[in-house]
Amino acid sequence: VAKAVVTQPPKGTRDLLPLDVRRRDHVIGVIREVYEAHGFEPLQTPALERLDTLLGKYGEEGDQLLFKVLLRGEPLVEGLRAAGAHLQQPGALVQGRSGETAPGAEPLLADLGLRYDLTVPLARVYAAYQGKLPPLFKRYQIQPVWRADTPGKGRFREFYQCDVDVVGSTSALVEAEVAGAAAECLQRLGFDDCVLRINHRGLLRALIERAGLAAAQEVDAITAIDKLDKVGLDGVARELETRGVDATGREALLGLLAHGNDLDALATALGDHAAGAQAVAELRQVLELASVTPAHGKLRFDVTLARGLSYYTGCIFEANVKDLAGSIGGGGRYDGLIGMFLGKQVPACGFSLGLERILVVMAERGMFPASLNEPHAVLGLLDEADAKAALRLARQLRDAGLRVDLRPKAIKPGKLRQEIEQRGLGHAIWLEPGATERASLWRRGEEKVQTNLPFGAIASAIGAEPPKATVAP
Amino acid sequence: VAKAVVTQPPKGTRDLLPLDVRRRDHVIGVIREVYEAHGFEPLQTPALERLDTLLGKYGEEGDQLLFKVLLRGEPLVEGLRAAGAHLQQPGALVQGRSGETAPGAEPLLADLGLRYDLTVPLARVYAAYQGKLPPLFKRYQIQPVWRADTPGKGRFREFYQCDVDVVGSTSALVEAEVAGAAAECLQRLGFDDCVLRINHRGLLRALIERAGLAAAQEVDAITAIDKLDKVGLDGVARELETRGVDATGREALLGLLAHGNDLDALATALGDHAAGAQAVAELRQVLELASVTPAHGKLRFDVTLARGLSYYTGCIFEANVKDLAGSIGGGGRYDGLIGMFLGKQVPACGFSLGLERILVVMAERGMFPASLNEPHAVLGLLDEADAKAALRLARQLRDAGLRVDLRPKAIKPGKLRQEIEQRGLGHAIWLEPGATERASLWRRGEEKVQTNLPFGAIASAIGAEPPKATVAP
Repeated sequence: VAKAVVTQPPKGTRDLLPLDVRRRDHVIGVIREVYEAHGFEPLQTPALERLDTLLGKYGEEGDQLLFKVLLRGEPLVEGLRAAGAHLQQPGALVQGRSGETAPGAEPLLADLGLRYDLTVPLARVYAAYQGKLPPLFKRYQIQPVWRADTPGKGRFREFYQCDVDVVGSTSALVEAEVAGAAAECLQRLGFDDCVLRINHRGLLRALIERAGLAAAQEVDAITAIDKLDKVGLDGVARELETRGVDATGREALLGLLAHGNDLDALATALGDHAAGAQAVAELRQVLELASVTPAHGKLRFDVTLARGLSYYTGCIFEANVKDLAGSIGGGGRYDGLIGMFLGKQVPACGFSLGLERILVVMAERGMFPASLNEPHAVLGLLDEADAKAALRLARQLRDAGLRVDLRPKAIKPGKLRQEIEQRGLGHAIWLEPGATERASLWRRGEEKVQTNLPFGAIASAIGAEPPKATVAP
Repeated sequence: VAKAVVTQPPKGTRDLLPLDVRRRDHVIGVIREVYEAHGFEPLQTPALERLDTLLGKYGEEGDQLLFKVLLRGEPLVEGLRAAGAHLQQPGALVQGRSGETAPGAEPLLADLGLRYDLTVPLARVYAAYQGKLPPLFKRYQIQPVWRADTPGKGRFREFYQCDVDVVGSTSALVEAEVAGAAAECLQRLGFDDCVLRINHRGLLRALIERAGLAAAQEVDAITAIDKLDKVGLDGVARELETRGVDATGREALLGLLAHGNDLDALATALGDHAAGAQAVAELRQVLELASVTPAHGKLRFDVTLARGLSYYTGCIFEANVKDLAGSIGGGGRYDGLIGMFLGKQVPACGFSLGLERILVVMAERGMFPASLNEPHAVLGLLDEADAKAALRLARQLRDAGLRVDLRPKAIKPGKLRQEIEQRGLGHAIWLEPGATERASLWRRGEEKVQTNLPFGAIASAIGAEPPKATVAP
């Protein structure tokens, strides 16, 4: 009995059929346009990175989740032969962070891995092309990443990230531009209800210090505060208790948070805390500057916004849309990461739009435009002998800027119209047998068929304008 | 001493800096537009495929060149432990084609591989979504593929393929459309000198049969004929001799080829060879139909065109441009491949544009448009206190459809103008200190600076039109 062939894509990955690609291209197209308008430049890096580059950058869990690529050819087999059975742990299978694997001691199975995010590649590129890149590097990058995670609803092993980052400036204007660009992307995609929350890691740290918590408890406290919108003040108190913050500390911190989103009150409560005052000043400046960007009316200070990742150093952002738990994008300032390969601090501020979530929400809410580059018309033949005339007509229509799907097989007008209905396309066109200069045109939703139209009249009957020249300058 | 960190991308891969991405996007944009106009639909498949899907599809060499992805987690380590040292050959490291690896017998190191081409994924998708795809599936796919080849000049381990295929029709109209679309892509990219050569595998087979060669010598003969344009008739004769074709056969075949590209003479010489006559008829039909497509004047019959790959069954194409050895694209009919996962014949005809070669040739010949989406203007501040006014102006210009790079750091007009010159950008704009409603504008190449322009007048001074609505219908 022949074994059934598996034709599904691997677990956690997806085939993108035409409608899926068109939707993704639509979203990416809008985002690119907005980022280009803001002076960001495109960057693409290889799917394959050295394991050296990737290992140790994403924590222990990240190291486990890297897809590692098997070495090619003989050395691998030799290495395995030599190694025999003395393999003890996964770490032995890949080149260590130090790259100091003694030859022959341990088998080297992999020296490459698949891109895990877009930040480490940016840091690598920033280090590699110091002379070629401008001192202020504003880049966007929209590419897939791979994680050997357990696949689940909305969690994939191959998915797109969509990052925008400004490297090389500490100016608050950068935060305002990044927030403005992100807000405009979401607005233009149709998320009129989007809110962009902003906070500052320096402010959170100052509040935690003012509450008398030890520096070592900062991460615990931030993690607890991060849950405030889900569990309320009582919940945060319990979380802090679980994480070993004593009653005095809990009370003091909750007291400070009780000021809510009143920046003035928080500033007063912080008193002479210099770093706290600096954070408040930066927040005020960003809020002021962003008020003339597309983030106007969307950007709101929220003292409970904490963001999970530890690397943020200044302002942090998170974008939310109504009736959706979790964020649809987030980012902030992280001055300690981009310089990792240079061994120095390099200021950076970025934003990552949750492309996969955006696609899911837009599909659920019917937010995609009715037409996404599908053919304007399907051109059919009643008699295959008229193929040459049909090709001539197709060319005329295409030269007029229309997308025309020409069917090689003879088809009846009724069947053609039925397909146009089903696929929601615009027009059916067909040549009557032997007619080499005239055709019939039917527009979806209309009763009437326009018969016997000269070829030259069809493009304008459909409504095509001559293709436009590109915009100035 | 600290070890130097390697920040170059892995061997055989490339970082695409902004100009590289813009050039690639330009080429891909033109190709997409042409294919969409021809009614082709986009498809994207995962970078990761099951090794099951990939192995045995690309010959023995292909199996060796697949990038295989290491299994995740414990099973791998357990497998290796159990396996000890009895590994003998690379085949043992990956899941066999049959998928019948007995558990524990051999260690299973990999069950996934990186996409090697775009044809096998198309065949898999065609089998997997029988109900969802139209009976005639016209798709284009532009994605990277990975091959663990030895990198060299112009040969990469990660590179893009750009395929268009029509699946499900045997009509000659399909060949005409595919040839027309490919010719238009190259024409629109600026390859005015492109020639599209066409031949037919059935004609070559008929000629070889007529010359009295054994069926087993067909591949040898095709390989020899493939070299005619490089080595001439004498060279082909020598090649045939090396490959064991006897003198009678050589003489007969060369005699037939001496008819050159005269289809009538070849048809006469083939006499009553039914398959040969059929091939000639198909060629004539494609040439006739393509004469009203953008392939008009570019498509030329060439009896010496053979194409290396063995899977072609009908018409074959190859695109060439002047002064370039080798082709810039190729394709043809291959009715035996797409049905591989369905166990049946599925007619198909496709064309693959050599995207990486196109990019190299266009760069060498200066064929890219002068402006490729770079910012229209760089907006600078003499005094950072004017950031808010600058953000307001930037927004106005962006809303008018301009791409504006706003610099957070104070900069002198001379320095700004210098950068505009160096990068070949359009305009410099700067705010005089304290000026919140007026700015100065300088266009590259001009002597004069327009000073004191109201914000509202700058977009039109640059030449922006209001953003256009999308085209009908």
